[in-house]
Amino acid sequence: MSAEYQRGLYEAIFRRRDIRKFIPDAVPDEVLARVIVAAHHAASVGFTQPWDFIVVRDTERRREVKRVFEQERVINAAQFTGDRLRKFLALKLEGILEAPLNLIVTCEPDRFGPAVLGKVSIREVEVYSTCLAVGNLWLAARAEGLGVGWVSIVRNETLGEIFSIPNHIIPVAYLCIGYVEAFPDQPVLESAEWAARMPARALLHFDSWKGSTESDGHTLADLVQSPEIWRGLFADAAPSDAEPRTVGTDVPNAISKPRGE
Amino acid sequence: MSAEYQRGLYEAIFRRRDIRKFIPDAVPDEVLARVIVAAHHAASVGFTQPWDFIVVRDTERRREVKRVFEQERVINAAQFTGDRLRKFLALKLEGILEAPLNLIVTCEPDRFGPAVLGKVSIREVEVYSTCLAVGNLWLAARAEGLGVGWVSIVRNETLGEIFSIPNHIIPVAYLCIGYVEAFPDQPVLESAEWAARMPARALLHFDSWKGSTESDGHTLADLVQSPEIWRGLFADAAPSDAEPRTVGTDVPNAISKPRGE
Repeated sequence: MSAEYQRGLYEAIFRRRDIRKFIPDAVPDEVLARVIVAAHHAASVGFTQPWDFIVVRDTERRREVKRVFEQERVINAAQFTGDRLRKFLALKLEGILEAPLNLIVTCEPDRFGPAVLGKVSIREVEVYSTCLAVGNLWLAARAEGLGVGWVSIVRNETLGEIFSIPNHIIPVAYLCIGYVEAFPDQPVLESAEWAARMPARALLHFDSWKGSTESDGHTLADLVQSPEIWRGLFADAAPSDAEPRTVGTDVPNAISKPRGE
Repeated sequence: MSAEYQRGLYEAIFRRRDIRKFIPDAVPDEVLARVIVAAHHAASVGFTQPWDFIVVRDTERRREVKRVFEQERVINAAQFTGDRLRKFLALKLEGILEAPLNLIVTCEPDRFGPAVLGKVSIREVEVYSTCLAVGNLWLAARAEGLGVGWVSIVRNETLGEIFSIPNHIIPVAYLCIGYVEAFPDQPVLESAEWAARMPARALLHFDSWKGSTESDGHTLADLVQSPEIWRGLFADAAPSDAEPRTVGTDVPNAISKPRGE
């Protein structure tokens, strides 16, 4: 792929955010259609394509979801105390009613019968596939300028009731989708100092869980921390980037720092 | 984002394949580093970043994985009979030893303690996050010209033993990674007539599982099937595409068909 195409993919990945603030502008059907087709082209175990998409615009059902969310949020809050609790309560965690639409991505295990190529040993593989569809959808939305927020504080049984989802179908992701005023430079939970981005080198192992070094392991561990690996793709464009607002500290350093810094 | 960047993202999505045939060329550390950083920038519940990456080059361990795979493949095969079984046995399902490297993506639930923002109701959310990391990795690899194959026919306990993975760490994805002779036009399981791509419109619901129509639902259902939604992004480039080999029937029609067909 050309450097431009590569950069397009990496731009979507590094500038994607979990969005909770939306503007009310409607999402054109054509844009939504592209985003859904992108999701449908995710990998799936045995090519089972286990996903479905429930497009939710109905306000009454969304109010019910919001009501359940508020209850669950209190339960979630009860895990935290002191400063951590104060921070939690200050965070806006969803845009269920503000977003012009919500979208539920579900998983139907054994869609074509119980015999699935690749599904002997790992029972959750179809749910994994559905997550890949959510990932594609999220990145395509970002490329289209659409924000997506994943609301995980809501019970599957309740979603099943509100949306008449059959018992054998798993609601994997409840998403809020819409245009945004801005994509934050950093993940919201990072700028709110809820958690920090882990250094990538801390996540690397070589040949076994205990193998933190190997002959060439040091090289890779250095490289994942290095802005140098992005120079070819990003550096020239960075200083004169047309969208300085979205060039943030969360993207690899080479994106936001001019060459030579 | 510019149309070029958007196209880059969609190219990666539509041309990504589950690869089982690799050429032995080494993957440069710099390329592997970019792909891993892309994975690390996936969304995660409560910004927990629950993933780790075990880079596997050791041949002896890979032989053990291959041995276990072969056992599990026999179990998987036993689900099928007749023509279906013949097809199954003819499929190459992994490139564990041929690929220059394997990569295990794991999930550590409760990495920063049991209190996780967003994790009251859905226990699997950290595994979902890990799948999003795998999705990013797969797309970044495709943009870099690297093939990735997800080997799901292998037991977690066995992986845990071979790679000394602690019990509380979940091996989510066992991946084979390397350069390829070609990215097939269609998913292998589609061209082998193992399964067909489902029509996207069959996967749409409106406002509830039973809602297959709504006022504007027909429009969206038509659009997800229509090459028209891709014209602005793909049509001009399609007839003179520089890589006709990779322009396949699996990508939206507008990519492979010149305008006016």
